[in-house]
Amino acid sequence: MEQSPNGLVVPRTIQLEIPPGGFPLESGKTLPEVVVQYETYGKLNENRDNTILLLHAFSGDAHAAGLHTPRDRHPGWWDDMVRPGGAFDTNKFFVICSNVLGGCRGTTGPGSKNPTTGIPWAMSFPTVTIGDMVEVQRQLLRQLGIDRLHATAGGSMGGMQALEWAIRYPGIAQQTILLASTHRLGAQGIAFNAVGRNAITSDPNWNKGNYYDGPQPSRGLAIARMVGHITYLSSESMRRKFGRRLQETHQGEEKHLDLQDQFAVESYLEYQGEKFVDRFDANSYIYLSKALDYYDAGASRDGLEAALARTDSRFLVLSYSSDWLFPTDQSKEIVYALARAGKDVSFNEINSPYGHDSFLLESHLQRDLISAFLEGGTS
Amino acid sequence: MEQSPNGLVVPRTIQLEIPPGGFPLESGKTLPEVVVQYETYGKLNENRDNTILLLHAFSGDAHAAGLHTPRDRHPGWWDDMVRPGGAFDTNKFFVICSNVLGGCRGTTGPGSKNPTTGIPWAMSFPTVTIGDMVEVQRQLLRQLGIDRLHATAGGSMGGMQALEWAIRYPGIAQQTILLASTHRLGAQGIAFNAVGRNAITSDPNWNKGNYYDGPQPSRGLAIARMVGHITYLSSESMRRKFGRRLQETHQGEEKHLDLQDQFAVESYLEYQGEKFVDRFDANSYIYLSKALDYYDAGASRDGLEAALARTDSRFLVLSYSSDWLFPTDQSKEIVYALARAGKDVSFNEINSPYGHDSFLLESHLQRDLISAFLEGGTS
Repeated sequence: MEQSPNGLVVPRTIQLEIPPGGFPLESGKTLPEVVVQYETYGKLNENRDNTILLLHAFSGDAHAAGLHTPRDRHPGWWDDMVRPGGAFDTNKFFVICSNVLGGCRGTTGPGSKNPTTGIPWAMSFPTVTIGDMVEVQRQLLRQLGIDRLHATAGGSMGGMQALEWAIRYPGIAQQTILLASTHRLGAQGIAFNAVGRNAITSDPNWNKGNYYDGPQPSRGLAIARMVGHITYLSSESMRRKFGRRLQETHQGEEKHLDLQDQFAVESYLEYQGEKFVDRFDANSYIYLSKALDYYDAGASRDGLEAALARTDSRFLVLSYSSDWLFPTDQSKEIVYALARAGKDVSFNEINSPYGHDSFLLESHLQRDLISAFLEGGTS
Repeated sequence: MEQSPNGLVVPRTIQLEIPPGGFPLESGKTLPEVVVQYETYGKLNENRDNTILLLHAFSGDAHAAGLHTPRDRHPGWWDDMVRPGGAFDTNKFFVICSNVLGGCRGTTGPGSKNPTTGIPWAMSFPTVTIGDMVEVQRQLLRQLGIDRLHATAGGSMGGMQALEWAIRYPGIAQQTILLASTHRLGAQGIAFNAVGRNAITSDPNWNKGNYYDGPQPSRGLAIARMVGHITYLSSESMRRKFGRRLQETHQGEEKHLDLQDQFAVESYLEYQGEKFVDRFDANSYIYLSKALDYYDAGASRDGLEAALARTDSRFLVLSYSSDWLFPTDQSKEIVYALARAGKDVSFNEINSPYGHDSFLLESHLQRDLISAFLEGGTS
């Protein structure tokens, strides 16, 4: 009984072909080896021009759709969107999603072994940027023989990558879809990321990043996740889901006045924190959150409008009414800059109570907007 | 060169007179001893009816105004408001502020010695509620010979206490001033508090609360403070104050792509976290944040309107446009319930960019509203 119309998918791993001096990074440093994990859905057409590159968000990975085993009860993170007849219709499109550079889900990151030393890079891994992620994806596509994209699409950090793709490689992606994203974080977003990093580095098990052969900084990472999780939801969605309900306990009478008792929202967050530790690497959290913080699409390009002037793609920008982490105003900055630069851009603020996570949840509201936009490009 | 028109103030400590069975708490438990630290400003009049009781917020204390030593460069937390000619005019009013029960600034709390054991209570301290704080203040006033209040006034957790005063002791406070407050936290507020508590209890130095004779859980407490601090500011005020500015470093060229580099907002938060540890006790953080979470003015009183129906006070409710932690909607719930109960209530949403902290900062905007309201009561 498979729970996804995408059926089983097999994650693939590819070793990137690296120039003699190593894979160059924006920091000026290089990597001697880059492995990329990716998944694909649908079929590449004969013209090799029906590819949609999905870019995942901060805690996402290459597993966008389908199941990994017949008993798998958790389909990929965008299974509702990537499917036959879905927003990214796998009857028409060849969809690729790869884990980002610096990640911990099959692509080279701080938890990978440094081939020179034979031990994990840990904090000696070079700084990674959104641009570096894009360069890795570019090389992946080259090796797969794909040099045109029907579209790139991503939410949150994925949107940053899609935006960077459009700026770096005009002409490759015909369409660019940015969901709940921004061209740069504001001080509040950076501040929340800083708290997460501090929680990790304050965990004694973090040990300056060298924990791969010992106890993990699980508590620190769990707390980072708890903070992050609150910012992904909206006040309204938390109120609806949890209100002031207390978690069931066996305490009995003094239940409402016991320090040990928990509100349902507390238990939920702690559970989310603990679950996250099983699938995420603390050092990747540090590297990727720093990549988020540093990203500023217009910074070294004479501003956002000038940066976008070089793009050659149609844009669809979607924001979500209750998203306070990547608020609509930040999406509008991109939209206005594109409009001023004379580019083809559609914008919609989707009315949703689910906060930043809306782009992962509002498949129904997004589907028609995205399919119509993707059709517009092929007609 | 004193920096406050209030001059020097001397914090006072008083031992509460305790009934034979101990000081009763809402949980059903009792305390064998309660010491209260308080400060006063202005003079009690002959009728003993010009007292204004200030209720401090979560991380505040009894030191609302003035200086502690001639060289003190940090006047009390509401020094702009409590002064001759200020919102709380010390030429007219006798202003009292005491540290709350469960606190760590002179009033009995988890860091105080349990007289029975001779060692700090730590986590054996009984659960404390907003109602318990009010009962301690009530007894303090009794011992000072004050049984009528011109007003109570408080922001945030202080507003909860002022509200509880009005409900528990109708007729004592002629006026009640609630700033940036609520009758109960929502799920998001509880969630942020839960993260803070988790950060503390995850610090190995916390040691189940028994750290008073060893290393303090400073990192955990600092992280709790960092999270809290973000919620006290607004996205807009952080943008204005820090933007995406990097902290000055000596790194030189690679400054923008080095994991060690910090944005100004990160350094600021870490500084705030470290500073906080010097003046706050981690166990008090746990107890007081739990008191915040549990407070629900209408919960055991047939709802908010029924609870407010018993009050006999004029109310001034102020909220702040950019406060997303205690948003205007929550203040309005109190205002509407008061109105439905036929009570005398004034409401104003103050347009301020400073988020929840606005009530501590917008002295100028608050002064006339508060003075006029306080005058209205005496005329």
